Amino acid sequence: MAELLAINWEDKREKLILLDQRKLPNEIEYIEYDTVEGVFQSIKDMVVRGAPAIGVVAAYGMYFGAKNTNLESYNDFIEKMNQYKNYLNSSRPTAVNLSWSTKRILDKTNICKDMKKIKKDIKKEARLIHEEDIEICRKIGENLLSLLHDDMGILTHCNAGQLATSKYGTATSPMYLAKEKGWNLKIYSDETRPRLQGSTLTALELSIADIDVTTITDNMAAMVMSQNKVQAVIVGCDRIAANGDTANKIGTLGVSILAKYFKIPMYIAAPTPSIDLNTLDGASIPIEERDIKEVTCRFGICTVPKNVKVYNPAFDVTPYENITAIVTEKGIVYPPYDKNLKQILNKGGDI
Amino acid sequence: MAELLAINWEDKREKLILLDQRKLPNEIEYIEYDTVEGVFQSIKDMVVRGAPAIGVVAAYGMYFGAKNTNLESYNDFIEKMNQYKNYLNSSRPTAVNLSWSTKRILDKTNICKDMKKIKKDIKKEARLIHEEDIEICRKIGENLLSLLHDDMGILTHCNAGQLATSKYGTATSPMYLAKEKGWNLKIYSDETRPRLQGSTLTALELSIADIDVTTITDNMAAMVMSQNKVQAVIVGCDRIAANGDTANKIGTLGVSILAKYFKIPMYIAAPTPSIDLNTLDGASIPIEERDIKEVTCRFGICTVPKNVKVYNPAFDVTPYENITAIVTEKGIVYPPYDKNLKQILNKGGDI
Repeated sequence: MAELLAINWEDKREKLILLDQRKLPNEIEYIEYDTVEGVFQSIKDMVVRGAPAIGVVAAYGMYFGAKNTNLESYNDFIEKMNQYKNYLNSSRPTAVNLSWSTKRILDKTNICKDMKKIKKDIKKEARLIHEEDIEICRKIGENLLSLLHDDMGILTHCNAGQLATSKYGTATSPMYLAKEKGWNLKIYSDETRPRLQGSTLTALELSIADIDVTTITDNMAAMVMSQNKVQAVIVGCDRIAANGDTANKIGTLGVSILAKYFKIPMYIAAPTPSIDLNTLDGASIPIEERDIKEVTCRFGICTVPKNVKVYNPAFDVTPYENITAIVTEKGIVYPPYDKNLKQILNKGGDI
Repeated sequence: MAELLAINWEDKREKLILLDQRKLPNEIEYIEYDTVEGVFQSIKDMVVRGAPAIGVVAAYGMYFGAKNTNLESYNDFIEKMNQYKNYLNSSRPTAVNLSWSTKRILDKTNICKDMKKIKKDIKKEARLIHEEDIEICRKIGENLLSLLHDDMGILTHCNAGQLATSKYGTATSPMYLAKEKGWNLKIYSDETRPRLQGSTLTALELSIADIDVTTITDNMAAMVMSQNKVQAVIVGCDRIAANGDTANKIGTLGVSILAKYFKIPMYIAAPTPSIDLNTLDGASIPIEERDIKEVTCRFGICTVPKNVKVYNPAFDVTPYENITAIVTEKGIVYPPYDKNLKQILNKGGDI
């Protein structure tokens, strides 16, 4: 199976090789990194994107910082590593995985004062963060796969794909695992206006993996469902509130309503850190409005006349009652979500 | 009120002045015609589009043919006019309004043999076809307006607008009439992928008429409805079957399901010729699939990777049970549609 991985680690030469996602879908190019400054720039310039992927890349950035430092004093070294942490954290403002990852690396410097050993431990931790990310996605995929069967049609929206993670992705994970099993799933990928992550990313990564994928415009989802071509909807999520209300890419709410109308199960693929019990319900989730140019000029030329108002919310909220199950790396969560989401978070991590 | 009219007739100079719709929304240019050949080309090249508009333009084309002919023998003249009819009918393959209009003009040549009078009668008939088209749209608008009130939010999909007719449009007609009354309707215009008629045509014509219009991507409709910003959906139609099932631009089915979910009335604006009692239900309506380039390359740059499959149906079918009312120039039709559509067609035209 050919595959398109955002993050590649070459252990012998100790190089981080990132897919340049700015050039997708028309060019597939990789860039090699071996400095903390390079990694900072790769995140800032969006060579790599997606919260999980950014976290992994930042961990390698911390390792490059440690490796390339010639400071001999332990205290000077620690000070430098703290600087690198703040530096990397500043590369993107919002991704929580970024600061979580750099902190986890920094914690490894407190165990002993043997510089050689510390650098070795940091590398090991960065590799572990990378592998854990793959494992979380794989587990989500396995749990989702238990809800599916061969020859199903599946609709997905936006890109909760392997390109946003180290491997497998979240919503796309069962699609890759099904391919490994020899199943023939038929995937419908909403193009996902305005930024078109569905056509430029999801359709790309699935087609390179030789998975049967068809791109449709968002407004064709209802017709495809009406033709009995879809037996399950699987999407990712940005945040899940305590009652199960789920914020995800704009358009997900509409897809959930169509799924309900056509009696198609709606699954949310969610790493447990996406579950936020401090947010009571969807109404409490702030919705980012983005630059209207995403709507008016996404294709290079202007598709909305000047002086016409444009509304461009980046996310919407799917109410819990439209969600059949929330599928995490720790297991499948069914309603009632207010009770069962708490339970899954308290469950010991088995990965 | 500023207005953007597809068809303008300058009576003194006897010129047909058409808005060049190929250049919308970025340039507003008009082209003047006074020959049958010019009119043929304007339809063929899609300077003018929309079945009602094409019908009107073809009638003027027949008049130019008659006017510019120096044949003195009545029989030669009739033969020539028959040639013009076939010539104009061949400019676009499907629009039924086209052949209906040219035949109606040709019928005017049978009344007497006085060439001067015939030419005068033809002009009068062309003007009448033009005025009747305006009147049908205005009546549809008046009937729709009786279902609305000031300050409402209305969502529309695609362009069933004045640009496809002589004036007012069908779905947009109540919006223009409300503006004339001083009402402040707030219109949400789905951009309508893949061809973007909602953003490039509907948003354009409404904004030029100083009507409050906001463009959204198709997948934002659910969110806008969930925020209680929409109190009615109004769309046009391509064909209505005997049971009320309605074919319209792709995405209309999805909008109807969202409207039902949010308990928002869904109105179809329909000139009675769109009602086809010979088509029993939606399943009998053939759905055109169009070039996938509309999805992959709408504006020159490629937004779907090569080798990815694309599905591009141009229309979908909204089942009758999702439709609150079908609003025609002869009146408002409520369920049961199988009975009431027959009734409205039998009703004497009061326009």
